[in-house]
Amino acid sequence: MYPEPGATAEKEGIHAGIEFPDRLSAWRPYVLINMVSSVDGRSSSGGRASGIGGRADRATMRVLRSLVDAVMVGAGTLRAERLNLGLDEPGARQPLAVIVGGRGAMPLERQIRPGGQATLLALPEGSPSDAGTNAGRAEVLEVPGSGRGRVDVGELLARLKTDRGVDLLLVEGGPSLNRSLIDANLADEIFLTLAPKLLAGQEAAIVAGGAIETPRSLDLVSVHSSAHELFLRYRVRDPE
Amino acid sequence: MYPEPGATAEKEGIHAGIEFPDRLSAWRPYVLINMVSSVDGRSSSGGRASGIGGRADRATMRVLRSLVDAVMVGAGTLRAERLNLGLDEPGARQPLAVIVGGRGAMPLERQIRPGGQATLLALPEGSPSDAGTNAGRAEVLEVPGSGRGRVDVGELLARLKTDRGVDLLLVEGGPSLNRSLIDANLADEIFLTLAPKLLAGQEAAIVAGGAIETPRSLDLVSVHSSAHELFLRYRVRDPE
Repeated sequence: MYPEPGATAEKEGIHAGIEFPDRLSAWRPYVLINMVSSVDGRSSSGGRASGIGGRADRATMRVLRSLVDAVMVGAGTLRAERLNLGLDEPGARQPLAVIVGGRGAMPLERQIRPGGQATLLALPEGSPSDAGTNAGRAEVLEVPGSGRGRVDVGELLARLKTDRGVDLLLVEGGPSLNRSLIDANLADEIFLTLAPKLLAGQEAAIVAGGAIETPRSLDLVSVHSSAHELFLRYRVRDPE
Repeated sequence: MYPEPGATAEKEGIHAGIEFPDRLSAWRPYVLINMVSSVDGRSSSGGRASGIGGRADRATMRVLRSLVDAVMVGAGTLRAERLNLGLDEPGARQPLAVIVGGRGAMPLERQIRPGGQATLLALPEGSPSDAGTNAGRAEVLEVPGSGRGRVDVGELLARLKTDRGVDLLLVEGGPSLNRSLIDANLADEIFLTLAPKLLAGQEAAIVAGGAIETPRSLDLVSVHSSAHELFLRYRVRDPE
């Protein structure tokens, strides 16, 4: 199967022009999770995800962002490194940035690179008013909590769909947010960049581990490669 | 790149007839590591690796075993589940089975399924004489220790090459043995079956995590698929 003449990334970019199911849910966005991991399953190195993928991974991330209405990350990912959740091209239609906050402070000013992008900070109802430090950079959206000082991700998704018209949502981690979505059966597709590395660190997998294993089956939709990186697209099957 | 007409496993089996570099080391075997993991990087489920891969994974494991002179596993893998490290076909040339033991007891009688296969139990020099419980099932090979009650894997590989003529060695984990080999720059290739699952358990990655991250780069050699499983072959690059 590999190598093939068509094996490398096309000029227009991996995943450019891909399609999604017609019948989207009426109450929530269709949810794509995009992650990079090493061959030994580490999704970060030295606490950051940004060093793992190569140039094609960054290009693929931008293609996916260009397809969706909103890009979401969890608080831990925001705290771990300085982010830009938008598109670089001047004049591009920027997806809405959504940060899922919890109990801790959210250093938006320091961690979000300015990019002319509307930013929403989702906080559990009743959060202290200073939870969104420098929240001037973002609109705060209060969402019912899950009971552990966290936003209920189902409630958040419903609000994004009905109040903001978000039909397609791209989630870029971290592992805890991914886990919440998968456990609640809210993740529709997984895009995994498999970086040709062994990291062997004490770092997290793309989905956080939990006391209870909740195995889910995936359907392999497509495989692309660029240099030694693999770009895998999976659809998450409904629980059996 | 996928799906392709030739994407599914050929009749003769994935990896059948693959070749290895001509110039093998004079002092140690060429080392292949074969592992299965879920898309979220878990190499075991409920403590066992055997439930993760499908039928094509088991077939591929047998193809790799048929190519090598010896099949090696660590003590933890042996304790975790009942194993047969050989080939099922009657009359097949069986690879030597090598169990890398440590401080704990090695329940060979209970955990190794009989298969007419010569079995070697490698123990650190000076191990208590009962360390190989039921060692009647195996020949005990004493090897200099690494200083932490473990066999020095470099010494063991040298002994396998010079005393047993092992030119090609297949390692089937677990994660700690893989880590020892990779850290010592003794792993030449990684065969990874990527099972179309999210496990999200508290389970180990294919390479054990350590305090010190020792990133290694890989070259992607081939990609095969069967149903929704991917079969990836990587060559480990020399450290930079």
